[in-house]
Amino acid sequence: MRSGERAPLFELKTSRPSRFDSRRIVTDLLASGGIAIDGGEPWDIRVHDERFFDRLLREESLGLGESYMDGWWDCPSIDQMICRSFDAELHTRLKLDWATVLSELRVRLLNLQSIRRAPRVARTHYDLGNAFFERMLGPTMTYSCGYWRKARTLEESQDDKHELVCEKLDLDSGDRLLDIGCGWGRLLRHATEGRGCRAIGITLSQNQIDWAKPRSGALSIDYWLADYRDPRLVQSAPFDKIVSVGMFEHVGRRNYRRYMECVHRLLADDGLFLLHTIGNHPHAGVDVWTERYIFPNSVTPSQRDLVSAIGELFIIEDWHNFGADYDRTLMAWHENFERHAAEPDFPYDERFKRMWRLYLLMFAGTFRSRMRMQLWQLVLAKKGRRGGYRSVR
Amino acid sequence: MRSGERAPLFELKTSRPSRFDSRRIVTDLLASGGIAIDGGEPWDIRVHDERFFDRLLREESLGLGESYMDGWWDCPSIDQMICRSFDAELHTRLKLDWATVLSELRVRLLNLQSIRRAPRVARTHYDLGNAFFERMLGPTMTYSCGYWRKARTLEESQDDKHELVCEKLDLDSGDRLLDIGCGWGRLLRHATEGRGCRAIGITLSQNQIDWAKPRSGALSIDYWLADYRDPRLVQSAPFDKIVSVGMFEHVGRRNYRRYMECVHRLLADDGLFLLHTIGNHPHAGVDVWTERYIFPNSVTPSQRDLVSAIGELFIIEDWHNFGADYDRTLMAWHENFERHAAEPDFPYDERFKRMWRLYLLMFAGTFRSRMRMQLWQLVLAKKGRRGGYRSVR
Repeated sequence: MRSGERAPLFELKTSRPSRFDSRRIVTDLLASGGIAIDGGEPWDIRVHDERFFDRLLREESLGLGESYMDGWWDCPSIDQMICRSFDAELHTRLKLDWATVLSELRVRLLNLQSIRRAPRVARTHYDLGNAFFERMLGPTMTYSCGYWRKARTLEESQDDKHELVCEKLDLDSGDRLLDIGCGWGRLLRHATEGRGCRAIGITLSQNQIDWAKPRSGALSIDYWLADYRDPRLVQSAPFDKIVSVGMFEHVGRRNYRRYMECVHRLLADDGLFLLHTIGNHPHAGVDVWTERYIFPNSVTPSQRDLVSAIGELFIIEDWHNFGADYDRTLMAWHENFERHAAEPDFPYDERFKRMWRLYLLMFAGTFRSRMRMQLWQLVLAKKGRRGGYRSVR
Repeated sequence: MRSGERAPLFELKTSRPSRFDSRRIVTDLLASGGIAIDGGEPWDIRVHDERFFDRLLREESLGLGESYMDGWWDCPSIDQMICRSFDAELHTRLKLDWATVLSELRVRLLNLQSIRRAPRVARTHYDLGNAFFERMLGPTMTYSCGYWRKARTLEESQDDKHELVCEKLDLDSGDRLLDIGCGWGRLLRHATEGRGCRAIGITLSQNQIDWAKPRSGALSIDYWLADYRDPRLVQSAPFDKIVSVGMFEHVGRRNYRRYMECVHRLLADDGLFLLHTIGNHPHAGVDVWTERYIFPNSVTPSQRDLVSAIGELFIIEDWHNFGADYDRTLMAWHENFERHAAEPDFPYDERFKRMWRLYLLMFAGTFRSRMRMQLWQLVLAKKGRRGGYRSVR
């Protein structure tokens, strides 16, 4: 949150550098990360519109993103450029702008993920259309980080991740499983087919249910259009195992504790809960561009956020960081996306293409640099597994 | 800390139950955990002195421990009795006594592990004598939880633990390693011999250094009689890898943050830090009996304590809970101890024997029940390992 920087922010607004100065400031800043303007390396930036420099200094991440969408600059390898920027900690040397401050305040003061508002992210992002996600995500339709320890393809990485989750949960045929934020249901099908357990999956997207249901055949899966706070879940409790993959990012800081309390209430006393989530650096605020264009109302938790919310409810049995695997996952999605975007019947315009490309490559570079974002899988137990929890990798 | 219980505490003091009531209350309480007074099961309690019931209700853990030392009660399997007590959550149904409250306040208000006071635990516990520990710990002289995934003996479990640590730290011959609280140096010898790295080990016990030095031969190990805050360490920094096994329990709550800052300062930017520590339940205070007789000034951290102290200094790469392995380790130590205590030249009296037996078996039972105490190994990085941290088990 970089508090206490209010004074220099104001200074920046009142004595904004001229365009000539902006070019020099940005050029020097990028040079310290080994990135050149109009240079020949894949991570160098080619600037098409001189207003880029001003906009970047004025609006930081938002300016960088919107000016890319507007075609003001290009870069042969945005992922490498972003990774180098974080490695050189350039982000800490750009001043905070008012949009960031206001967005941060909004996250802190409002409950952006109240039951009423929560469907918003489902509508704007996940409802882009199943056809779109089929092209980008491939046959697994899994929109979260794969596990690349042995995998050679995107599909393998997702199936390996699902198998890893089943192993970590020690899932067997007698178990009832709840999947909070089940997406298109691949994990549910993997678990019920492979382990013979019964399962309920909840999501806020009717599109996902419509896609998943006919593909689940005779497997013992119920799909519910429901929020994790839905009182009907309590009536179905206790669940032996609960899993939540890539959904906690949409829960919102003010609901972290409530979320953990809900899971605690739904989980059997000797059950296990696996939480798979992106982790953020404690000092990182909300990225304004991502919040505006990609994931409205989303915020990733820090390690302290997680453990505070867990409180005395759960014992940490296991905590696995495989953030570097998100780099490979995002690069695979990007490859699929570009192939799709090059097709003549691609239904979105150039600005959308640039927006989506920036999103995928920016996150790939961020995960590659490792400092800023993590991918964590936590295994939590109410009382600790008798005989010891057997951690797997 | 069970705050807000002041009123009933006072009530207990003013209207203390008569001895007859005490027997009934304790008998009922234990019965709800399946433990009988003078029953025939190994976890049943045989009471030799009727004052036991009063003392247990009045002084809880301290009364339980001291009355055992005084020979007022016996139990064929103290570990099973303790495990059953925790499983039935009997500890939450005994009132807090004033000794617990005062001891807790002491931990909160005083810095019991200041540089000046820190040697106290080393003097009273670790200086019991190397001969004593050689008998109890066996040839590895390792006084921390072993790793029993594949091990069949205590010695194997300790060597496997040391190999696990080396693997998790990705230790190689170019590394400089710092071991904070190196004990009798087995980990240092394992690491320098197996990986060819150079190392410094620090301890507050001259006894440990005297024992370890002649056994380190030509290995590249320096032993320092030093505190983790010792300014000479900064002059030797940065270290590529830092490890601390079973020492954080003596750091003290008020020093957790300082400890993490010290490690952060001493660690190379791309280095790794492995912290091996007992973990406590967030609601558990200090156990008065243990504090008084076994580990003066010691307190085990909760998961929240750890993550608060880590703050923004480190990224969590890995968190491994193998608390159940402490049960097996303690039972193995107990076996060694009883063999030693039965020898005619055993140099301590009956009261010491009972004290030490209770300590080992009480902790074995506590770790077996899993709810109350954990054994955690955390791997922490300043910036996250490039290419991803490869977690091992």
